[in-house]
This record gives sequence, C-alpha cells and structure tokens, in this order.
Amino acid sequence: MAKAINNSEYVDGILSSNITYVSRAITLVESTKEEHQEAAQEIINSVIQHSGNSFRLGITGVPGVGKSTFIESFGMEVIERGHKLAVLAIDPSSQLSKGSILGDKTRMEKLSVHPRAFIRPSPSSGSLGGVSRKTKESMIICEAAGYDYIFVETVGVGQSETAVHEVTDFFLLLILAGAGDELQGIKRGIMEMADGLVITKADGSNTEKAKLARAEYARAMHLFPPTDSQWIPEVLTCSSTENKGIREVYDMIEKYKRHTTLNNYFQTKRNRQSRQWLHHTIHDTLITNFYSKQIVRDEIQRIEKQMELKPVNPYQVVRDLFKKLN
Amino acid sequence: MAKAINNSEYVDGILSSNITYVSRAITLVESTKEEHQEAAQEIINSVIQHSGNSFRLGITGVPGVGKSTFIESFGMEVIERGHKLAVLAIDPSSQLSKGSILGDKTRMEKLSVHPRAFIRPSPSSGSLGGVSRKTKESMIICEAAGYDYIFVETVGVGQSETAVHEVTDFFLLLILAGAGDELQGIKRGIMEMADGLVITKADGSNTEKAKLARAEYARAMHLFPPTDSQWIPEVLTCSSTENKGIREVYDMIEKYKRHTTLNNYFQTKRNRQSRQWLHHTIHDTLITNFYSKQIVRDEIQRIEKQMELKPVNPYQVVRDLFKKLN
Repeated sequence: MAKAINNSEYVDGILSSNITYVSRAITLVESTKEEHQEAAQEIINSVIQHSGNSFRLGITGVPGVGKSTFIESFGMEVIERGHKLAVLAIDPSSQLSKGSILGDKTRMEKLSVHPRAFIRPSPSSGSLGGVSRKTKESMIICEAAGYDYIFVETVGVGQSETAVHEVTDFFLLLILAGAGDELQGIKRGIMEMADGLVITKADGSNTEKAKLARAEYARAMHLFPPTDSQWIPEVLTCSSTENKGIREVYDMIEKYKRHTTLNNYFQTKRNRQSRQWLHHTIHDTLITNFYSKQIVRDEIQRIEKQMELKPVNPYQVVRDLFKKLN
Repeated sequence: MAKAINNSEYVDGILSSNITYVSRAITLVESTKEEHQEAAQEIINSVIQHSGNSFRLGITGVPGVGKSTFIESFGMEVIERGHKLAVLAIDPSSQLSKGSILGDKTRMEKLSVHPRAFIRPSPSSGSLGGVSRKTKESMIICEAAGYDYIFVETVGVGQSETAVHEVTDFFLLLILAGAGDELQGIKRGIMEMADGLVITKADGSNTEKAKLARAEYARAMHLFPPTDSQWIPEVLTCSSTENKGIREVYDMIEKYKRHTTLNNYFQTKRNRQSRQWLHHTIHDTLITNFYSKQIVRDEIQRIEKQMELKPVNPYQVVRDLFKKLN
C-alpha cells in the first residue's frame, strides 16, 4: 500500500471485477491505519449500492473436520452451477494463528486458481464486533465486484458463529462422523443455529459411521424447536475427496432459498440484519469511545479489584463513575 | 409507599428478615420513580455485603409445563431440607400479562403460607437488561434477609433465559412429556444452556411417555458438547402432584454443587457473573443515555427509513451521526 490511494480507481477496478483492486480494497478494510480506514469507507460508500445480490453462506466446523477440502469441493460445485464465488474468513482468534483459518490454500488446488473464485484468508485482529464489521465490508466489496455466492468461513469453537450468523443467509455446520459424543469441541448453541448439518468424510470405512451419525443428528435436530424461517434443518453426509453428496448440499441450499423466498423470510432476515448492523455499530462506537479513555480503564481496574474482595453494587459504582467523568 | 422512606429502618428490617421490609424494598427496586430508585440503591449499598450466601436456581419452562406445581412441590422439598426459600420471577414480557408469570399463587398452597418461603411475582416492565438488574437486586435483598435458596423463574419462550443464566448458579429446564417434537415453543439455544432437564407430569397414563422422553432427551443432551463446568446435564422425570422424583431433583443439584465446588467452577462462575454485571451496567448506561436523546431517535428513524430504500454503510452513517452530536 505504498502508492497513494486513488479511490475512483479502486471503485472502477472493483466494479469491473478486477481481482487486484478487490484484494487491495479488502486490505484497506482490514487495515487499522486511520488513513486506510478513511479510504476504505469512501470506497464502500461508492460501491455499496451494487451490493446485496449474492447468496451468503456461513460455514463452520472445528479443525480436522475437513473444511478446506469441503470448500474446495463444494466451491467447485457452486462455480460449475454458474456462480462467481468469494470465500472469506471470520475469526477473531486468528491473531494467534495468523491466517491458518482457511487451512492451506494449497489444499484448494482447483478453487484457488479458478478465474471465477476469490479466496481471501483474513488473519484479522481486534474485537469480534470489529472482525464481523470487516467481514461484512469485505462482503460488500466482493458483491460489488459481481461475486454472487459468498462463503464466510469460521472455526466452530468460539463466539464468532453468532457474528457469522448475523451476516449470512444460511448457516452450515460441518461435523466429523464418529468423532464421539463430544461434538469435537463445538460450542454449545452452535448446533441450534445451523440451517443444515453436513457429516464430512463419509467415505471408505467411515461410510457406515457417517450414516449412523446422520440418523442420530437428524433425530436430535428434530427435537429442536422450529426456526423462525419454519425451515427444518437437514442433515446430510458427504465425501469431499470422492465428491459424493456435494450436489445434495447445493440442492438443500436451493430448497432453502425457495422456501425462504416464498415465505418472505429471506428479505425479512436481510432487513433485520441491516438494522442489527446499524445498532451494533452504534453500540460498538459508544463502548469503544468510552473504554478508550485512560481514566475509564483505571477506574474499572480499581472497581474490579474491589469486587474481588467484597460484593459491590454495580449500579452505584457505575453511576459514580459517570458522575466523575462528566 | 405513601410514608417517607427511612432507609435505616429498611436495612434493619431486611437484616432481621422482616418480610414486610423485604417486600417493600423490592417494590422500591422495581419502581421506575427516581426517588424510589435512589432509596433502593441506598438500601442495596447497605445490605450488599450480606448477600451472596445462597444457591441461585434458574427455573424455566413454557406455560402448561406445570411450573407452579413444580415450584410448590420442589420448594417444599428445599424447605424441608432446612433452607429458607425466595421465589422471584424474571420476565420482560409480563408487561402484557401483568404478573401471570408465577402462575396462580394459590396453586402454591403450602409454599405461599410457609414462614420460611417468600414468593414474589414481579410484573416488571422495561428492557431485558433492566429486568435482569431488578432481579439481581431483589436477589441481593432476599439473600441479605437470610434466604439461602433462591428460585428465579422465567417463561422459556423469550430471551430472558440468557439473563437468568447470568444471575443463577444452576439452570433447570422443565419439559412436558409427550408434547411432540417441537419442544412446545422453547426457544432454540435454551436446551443447551440447561444444567438439568426435568420431564414434568410423569404420572398416571403419562408415566411411560415421560420415561421415553427422558431416554430421548438424555441421548440428545449427551450429543451436546460438555459445559464449561465439565458437568454433564442430567435428565430426570418427576410428578409434582404425586411428589415423585422431587427428591432426585434436589439430589442432582447437590451433586452439581459438590462437583462445581470441587473444581472451583462455582466461584469462577460467580466472579465472572459479577464482572459481566458491571460491564452490562456500563453498556446499558451508555446505550440508554444515548438513545434517550430526542435528536438521536429522530436521526435513527431517518437512517432506518433510508436503509429500506437502498443499502447504506452503517459505519459511515454512525460516524456522521456522532459528528453531528458532538
């Protein structure tokens, strides 16, 4: 980013689907530098009216579930069905693992070199709210560049799933067959957010186990209350390496699209997400501004220490704190 | 509340376990009047160091599950085991149903007249955060008055379960046997928050169904990932009217107490809840102060209208909004 930023150049580049500009615009979005943020916001302002025309798919599953190979395999299916695909990542913890989230890009041999695919590992740091905002903004840039199918990938072990859920149309949970009862560390509550479950690695000696797991999870999903969309989450099995069951995942999502378009849930959800995004932005701004003050941080440290020694009335201490600050 | 408020009288009354003062202090907590709030906070400041010495049990389940009869039956068990019991309600929706949440107090025949029980239906209005705060504050008053077992009741259909979860030590979900697969409208995610499930009305012709349901739910619970406490939620059946299985619920909770005391999760959770409460109070105050301004409300209405017509960049509009306000 040594060159000066020429915004109209970026906007033209994005709208003409020039991958270099898409990529560099996302770098601006992800940057924490004030000037880059300014530029990023200007670009978003200019392209946002071209956004929204994609299907946004959240994909989650713990490391080892075969996410990269699933994305390779399912991504190619999506492209063969005529779409342009962008793959983004959301993962606040990746400040530690620096970009490991999308696995090895080399494991997406076909997808990573396909002219209609764009893969973007985002080793973002910062708060979850910030990461979620960056993902949404990257999504807007991709949509403006004509990508009409977006994968938002996350590791199913943290709280980022709620964030993914808030920016996507469909939430897909990948599960490893026969990995025991403990759901491989998937956080409580994630299973209930899923619009679809896919048991991965259903091949070879694993095939039978996968079938059993499918039946078991289908039974468990059925126990859950219905979703707001009146959609009953489906449970499928697939083998990414043998390319089995991949088409069925696509078909399930198409079925979901039809279902939620017919009952208008699709647009209702999108509108709700927009309002949520606005209010989250307001809340984040208020909270960030507040905690950014040194005096606030000092006071809170003092209060938390006090709290460990004896019970305190938060309402009272917070009132005192606000009085002190005004 | 016609008489002038004499705070030291309240404090003495509460600490000597005078039910009239406990009750009136909670009325002050629940009041929206500025002067009552002032008084309530002063009282809390004075009694808070006597709080914390209770077991806090969240109880949830949809209407019809038999919550009132369960509370009557289980509440008497708790009392017979030597405790003093306070029953509180948390329900932001009760502004509509005005106090219906605790069901008919007359259905708690024994409990409602027992000298060691205190039942408090709270038809609170206002935001969830506010309701949660009021419940926590009422709890402090009860604990200071020597109630060492607190039930916090909620209807398992809203978002109040998260709030209950944040103020209690154990989260108990009541389920109706054989009510079909749809979990009777229980919100997604609630089942995964439960530390224990109790299938109610396991009597008469319902006994067999309840047993089957128990096996099925136990199986489903086992599919969930382990909780932070390393506690595996148990599934029990009970008949409140025949007083069957009630002792087992008490024993399950005792087992949980031992488990979480040994691995120190109990205190860790309490400390986390205290910090959460502090930061929630800060966030709520920031957000309430912000939205209370007429100019903010007008601007947001304008922005939301704009958003329905075309996509807008929230980051940009929020920045503009904050600039405008400063």
